[in-house]
Amino acid sequence: MSRSIEFVEVGPRDGLQNEAVIVGTADKVALIRRAIAAGARRIEVASFVNPKKVPQMADAEAVVEQLGRVDGLTRIGLVLNERGAERALSTGLDQLGAVAVASDEFGARNQGQTSAESVAVAARIIAMAQAAGITAQVTIATAFGCPFTGPVDPARVVAMARELAAAGPVEIALADTIGVAVPAEVSALVGAVRQAVAPLPVRVHFHNTRGTGIANVWAAVEAGAGVVDGSIGGLGGCPFAPGAAGNVASEDVAWMLERSGVATGLDLARLVDTARWLGEVMGKEMPSMLAKVGAP
Amino acid sequence: MSRSIEFVEVGPRDGLQNEAVIVGTADKVALIRRAIAAGARRIEVASFVNPKKVPQMADAEAVVEQLGRVDGLTRIGLVLNERGAERALSTGLDQLGAVAVASDEFGARNQGQTSAESVAVAARIIAMAQAAGITAQVTIATAFGCPFTGPVDPARVVAMARELAAAGPVEIALADTIGVAVPAEVSALVGAVRQAVAPLPVRVHFHNTRGTGIANVWAAVEAGAGVVDGSIGGLGGCPFAPGAAGNVASEDVAWMLERSGVATGLDLARLVDTARWLGEVMGKEMPSMLAKVGAP
Repeated sequence: MSRSIEFVEVGPRDGLQNEAVIVGTADKVALIRRAIAAGARRIEVASFVNPKKVPQMADAEAVVEQLGRVDGLTRIGLVLNERGAERALSTGLDQLGAVAVASDEFGARNQGQTSAESVAVAARIIAMAQAAGITAQVTIATAFGCPFTGPVDPARVVAMARELAAAGPVEIALADTIGVAVPAEVSALVGAVRQAVAPLPVRVHFHNTRGTGIANVWAAVEAGAGVVDGSIGGLGGCPFAPGAAGNVASEDVAWMLERSGVATGLDLARLVDTARWLGEVMGKEMPSMLAKVGAP
Repeated sequence: MSRSIEFVEVGPRDGLQNEAVIVGTADKVALIRRAIAAGARRIEVASFVNPKKVPQMADAEAVVEQLGRVDGLTRIGLVLNERGAERALSTGLDQLGAVAVASDEFGARNQGQTSAESVAVAARIIAMAQAAGITAQVTIATAFGCPFTGPVDPARVVAMARELAAAGPVEIALADTIGVAVPAEVSALVGAVRQAVAPLPVRVHFHNTRGTGIANVWAAVEAGAGVVDGSIGGLGGCPFAPGAAGNVASEDVAWMLERSGVATGLDLARLVDTARWLGEVMGKEMPSMLAKVGAP
């Protein structure tokens, strides 16, 4: 187990993407700047997807333009196909995020690709990034379960991870897209994928839909995951579970890890301030637990 | 790590005790009966404390009387001193729960005892139970931190556990009274206490104040805790952190453990039904995560 992890703030992308209230470009940029001030050094700043399907991300180019380049920050743009990759590359982002799906049914509905097709597309996106002189990472979505077809075979995820690693991403991320994972599964899958893709780091992305998000982060870090996602305030939700919580809150992740002796580089007080500010922007109480009681 | 745990439902006692809305005796008994129907075989049914200080527990005797004896169920009554133990014993309960405190300051404010005095009183309560022909357990409160004085020395908790074990309780419970514990601390303390009191089981009691409740349950079970507390719906709160969440929700604990291959004896659907019913009784949305999305 490592005594430090790399943190990735995903609120501006995955968090907002699952929120019904459309947030203005200036507030999105303000959120990103606040995350930087709180210590985030990698941030998913936007996804370059069909604005008809995801209106919240229609201003992706404008967000990147208004944010500009930031010293020491890796700005990640998430893309699902070559068209999105071209859009993202044209903005001058630092890294592309590709998405392969472990479930055929989810792939068909989310991005019009089978699982195998999504792996091939992700490999092409990684190549496009490299050709443009930047890096790319890839996330395996529905790695712990599919909202339509249920269980996902861990062996399939490991095989995908191995194939994707060969394409040259900076990391393989495992995403519990619908928040069904429990710590025992996380330990097993992170361990197996880590072995399959070493020395590439394994990154993890959890939702707190059923209350296990923070437990899953801990299990993953214990199993050797080197990169952990969070979303300030626990922004977001789950399109497959109305009323559910969103991503694990960055400040809850940071509190748990820092107090457990695992350095995150994050500033708890600034995260909590931002979570509370975000609650005002979104007009709702955020799911974050630390934001309710305050930083120590 | 064990593949099954014993579950203790604490909602009728610790959950309600931290709720401002006074619940009627009939609803308390209904909650207990619903917990039994959902598989709970040990339940903290009431605490026998000063009704002026804890009005919610003023009907402790009436709750036990209306509930009656239930085959296969251990009805626990929590007591802080000999006077409470006498009251509890007169009701014909199955088990006394004594409370020793790791922090002098918390002990002074909560029960008018220093830490050392609380250990002595707990030992006398255990003896009173045994003299009456029933069993007793003991909980070490503020085992992971004190709301007034901060950190608690794990060595003090281990020493208390060893001393208390000699008094003959059925188990030693470690309570994170204010919800500050993180998994790394839990693993270490559960491991150390387990070694100190073996073959007595270690029981754990967590609050989700800072989002780590379920992670702490997992860390404790991995470290060999054999008994786990939960409160249906996540009932309760934290008197030291207004607006904070309560005990870990029984259904969230059960979902996480069952899906991780650890049997709890609990029925998820019935727990979720009861959490929703409890939300109506309390007139608020319960913190439980599983109650929001439903049992699988």
